[in-house]
Amino acid sequence: MPEEHRSSWRSKLHEIIYEADTRAGKLFDLVLLFVIILSIVLVMLESVKSLNAQYFEWFYKAEWIITIAFTIEYVLRIITVKRPKHYIFSFYGIVDLLSTIPTYLTLLVGGQNLFLAVRALRLLRVFRILKITRYIGESNKLVRALKDSRPKIMVFLFTVLVLCIIMGTVMHLVEGEQGGFDNIPISIYWCIVTLTTVGFGDIHPVTPAGQAIASVIMILGYGIIAVPTGIVSAEYTRDMKNNTIPVPINSQVCRVCNESKHMDDAKYCHNCGSKLNE
Amino acid sequence: MPEEHRSSWRSKLHEIIYEADTRAGKLFDLVLLFVIILSIVLVMLESVKSLNAQYFEWFYKAEWIITIAFTIEYVLRIITVKRPKHYIFSFYGIVDLLSTIPTYLTLLVGGQNLFLAVRALRLLRVFRILKITRYIGESNKLVRALKDSRPKIMVFLFTVLVLCIIMGTVMHLVEGEQGGFDNIPISIYWCIVTLTTVGFGDIHPVTPAGQAIASVIMILGYGIIAVPTGIVSAEYTRDMKNNTIPVPINSQVCRVCNESKHMDDAKYCHNCGSKLNE
Amino acid sequence: MPEEHRSSWRSKLHEIIYEADTRAGKLFDLVLLFVIILSIVLVMLESVKSLNAQYFEWFYKAEWIITIAFTIEYVLRIITVKRPKHYIFSFYGIVDLLSTIPTYLTLLVGGQNLFLAVRALRLLRVFRILKITRYIGESNKLVRALKDSRPKIMVFLFTVLVLCIIMGTVMHLVEGEQGGFDNIPISIYWCIVTLTTVGFGDIHPVTPAGQAIASVIMILGYGIIAVPTGIVSAEYTRDMKNNTIPVPINSQVCRVCNESKHMDDAKYCHNCGSKLNE
Amino acid sequence: MPEEHRSSWRSKLHEIIYEADTRAGKLFDLVLLFVIILSIVLVMLESVKSLNAQYFEWFYKAEWIITIAFTIEYVLRIITVKRPKHYIFSFYGIVDLLSTIPTYLTLLVGGQNLFLAVRALRLLRVFRILKITRYIGESNKLVRALKDSRPKIMVFLFTVLVLCIIMGTVMHLVEGEQGGFDNIPISIYWCIVTLTTVGFGDIHPVTPAGQAIASVIMILGYGIIAVPTGIVSAEYTRDMKNNTIPVPINSQVCRVCNESKHMDDAKYCHNCGSKLNE
Repeated sequence: MPEEHRSSWRSKLHEIIYEADTRAGKLFDLVLLFVIILSIVLVMLESVKSLNAQYFEWFYKAEWIITIAFTIEYVLRIITVKRPKHYIFSFYGIVDLLSTIPTYLTLLVGGQNLFLAVRALRLLRVFRILKITRYIGESNKLVRALKDSRPKIMVFLFTVLVLCIIMGTVMHLVEGEQGGFDNIPISIYWCIVTLTTVGFGDIHPVTPAGQAIASVIMILGYGIIAVPTGIVSAEYTRDMKNNTIPVPINSQVCRVCNESKHMDDAKYCHNCGSKLNE
Repeated sequence: MPEEHRSSWRSKLHEIIYEADTRAGKLFDLVLLFVIILSIVLVMLESVKSLNAQYFEWFYKAEWIITIAFTIEYVLRIITVKRPKHYIFSFYGIVDLLSTIPTYLTLLVGGQNLFLAVRALRLLRVFRILKITRYIGESNKLVRALKDSRPKIMVFLFTVLVLCIIMGTVMHLVEGEQGGFDNIPISIYWCIVTLTTVGFGDIHPVTPAGQAIASVIMILGYGIIAVPTGIVSAEYTRDMKNNTIPVPINSQVCRVCNESKHMDDAKYCHNCGSKLNE
Repeated sequence: MPEEHRSSWRSKLHEIIYEADTRAGKLFDLVLLFVIILSIVLVMLESVKSLNAQYFEWFYKAEWIITIAFTIEYVLRIITVKRPKHYIFSFYGIVDLLSTIPTYLTLLVGGQNLFLAVRALRLLRVFRILKITRYIGESNKLVRALKDSRPKIMVFLFTVLVLCIIMGTVMHLVEGEQGGFDNIPISIYWCIVTLTTVGFGDIHPVTPAGQAIASVIMILGYGIIAVPTGIVSAEYTRDMKNNTIPVPINSQVCRVCNESKHMDDAKYCHNCGSKLNE
Repeated sequence: MPEEHRSSWRSKLHEIIYEADTRAGKLFDLVLLFVIILSIVLVMLESVKSLNAQYFEWFYKAEWIITIAFTIEYVLRIITVKRPKHYIFSFYGIVDLLSTIPTYLTLLVGGQNLFLAVRALRLLRVFRILKITRYIGESNKLVRALKDSRPKIMVFLFTVLVLCIIMGTVMHLVEGEQGGFDNIPISIYWCIVTLTTVGFGDIHPVTPAGQAIASVIMILGYGIIAVPTGIVSAEYTRDMKNNTIPVPINSQVCRVCNESKHMDDAKYCHNCGSKLNE
């Protein structure tokens, strides 16, 4: 087989596997999406005891078929890509590898349960496929807005954590073991549950003093829930503004230089200095 | 009956049923609103066992009277509208049909309970009546803001879902069956309950490791609750800006041309060029 | 006593009771604030059975002293004000009256418990006193922002209610009586508890189907919690902008007319048209 | 020892303890950070009964070593600083003192448990160390935004509190002791738990009337959760605008004066008046 021919065969496969512009590429992505979701559903159903007892053999077979398919896909990805090392050590390369390894490991180690979490990581592969859709532009904006507000969010989260540790200690001392505040770590856990307004109710204050302090913590939490929202909101608004012009502009056009976009209160053209049409 | 006369009779009915400008039209809307709410209240009360046992016959009769009234209304709507097909297959046309069918089906199939949900759909009809009120303008703005931010919200919801699936698997492995995390689907359910800060408390971690992971999930949820709020807020702010001009305007009125809405620092009228009153 | 003298005596009392500029007026407000809070604390403690059993007599005496003090104050307010009718039928006039009546009614009817809620209304009187503080300006802004976004919030709340009724019906049919979804009203109650992310946990789905639907409801609630926040935020931002100028302005001052507040890119004074100082 | 030499020795120590620019200063901060976190972890583990029973001696020794280290550090801080009084009565001075005192007090009074909360305050010292990082700028912005919106938040919190007191009284009357609404203070506690959307579920309405009122409270809470978020968001946006200029600026640089940051539609350099490069 001549080198050129083989190379063209590889570039065709590359187009199918990595891109989504051709029909075959789109089909490949759809099939891959389907298999990934199927494998995740399988992981879920496998964890349900009654189902696992009944359909164990089916689950076992399906898991192996999917794993072998993923292995073939992984090998093809390495073969067709120009810089295999770059791919193997990239984020998606590692995720792809982790999608196949756990099943092989069960042959050596046994204990399928142990690898359930790793197998659930296959879900991350979905992101690559959806990367091609139009949603990714929006996603980028979101990620940027979050990145821009990261230092603020860090400060905020740290403050919340310190608050939880101090408040948790206070609650442990006030409530003691009556309401389940047995030790400080569990009181801090309760404090986080409360400040985030989740409120499971497994632990809750029973003494009047504890309930009073809890009330203060809750109102505090209510007040500070505003902070991250405000930050992201402001950051996101600013991000959007860099694209649009926030200056009041009317539809006047200068008679001399045809310049438009004059400010609403402009008397003279900012372009050529001549008087503007009233 | 001459064609013209009949046509005018139909157009009059059309005015009453579809519009709300005339007195009869308003009255029709009010009566319809009352009957719809009555029928919904009926559905609710019917579901209360003790009430249904006692007043079954009354409920039965009232349901049939309402159904027949809705049927007559539906027929009239088809007769009076110019393009019946367009109406029948429109959103409200289908809702109107679904408001009458379930009761008739109970004659054939029995099992009233089964159609409760369909009968509750009658509530959607209220939206048509309220469409006429001044609130709809606001509603349109809301819908537009939501539509504009749909792709972002989709990306966001998908990210949350992936997070829930991975975190749910981890919690199932860490907590096992001690805290009720029997299988992955129920762990994912718990994860959604927690991330959305609902926190029923039917399932909750009991091991220290599980509580630590839960704390991370909750603080994460606290942080990402900011994202959709920020998106809608920014989108809505942008929407508002496109309509209103953010220029500081005072209450001066030009003595020459009576033009108002002058900028705060304007000396000359932007309308006629004459000097403004200080 | 000459009319003039009496009138001046009344105007002095008016100043003390209604205003807070003089020293006596401030003192009166402080004493009143103290008595109101004391009366509210009394209502609370009275409701605690163990305390009421022990200190019933003290509570009874204190309640009568406060009521008589409020009665005297109410009479003085009527006497000193110029248009008594206007005061009596104003919001605060009615609140003041309701602060005294319940205690007298217990003489006729008995059953103190019944009037607890009315006596708690005394708290509203605090607002009048705080009206004098600097906070009221902010409060006005808040009220205006809320008023401006009222129609939007109405549409929003109505949509949430319709969603709750339909989803509640669905949950009643899916869960039946297993998880406590005995009838539609209680399912709607659960739906509101869930959508608002409160999540008591007294009722919660137990069937897989119910938990799946509940997950959808929760994620939906997570998404739509953004809407009212976005509305108020945008409305409030706009409100603030009407006061501040959102145009980029530099500190240049025109040499000819001394006009300041020129736009950052202005070449010519927008006031007199002369060239600006570089 | 000559005065000068001693002074230079003191200023060197001051640099190490108070600043973080030199290598020794950075190292000191890192060691301090480690010891503080260690001491907090110690407080937490000590509160866990089973651990305390087993490792009591270790905890005791470690606590004394840390306390002595903090004491030495405190003395050094006083010696090296120029105005010791200013430091001692500053916020961090008091926190530093409180980090050492509780352990010494246990020698006199006994009852370690009592001082757990004070020892947890050591965590506040972490803030000083992190003050040096780049995050503090963001933190300042956050604090300013919160300070600016303090009066609004005060009005808001007060309104929420009044609402809770009145609604709590109503719930106590409607529910009585069936759902746990034994007295008004506990009903107010429940009201705060509900309005803040925490919802522990330890107390919850059981009568239809109580559930109806609870629904209204929850929807209300859902609506007003928007207010603080909107406030902080608007305040934060405004804060950001005062620092950054919201003018659309392109990357053009004037050929004559090298001035950058020209407006997008500028033809002439606003710095030297020469024509800009297209």
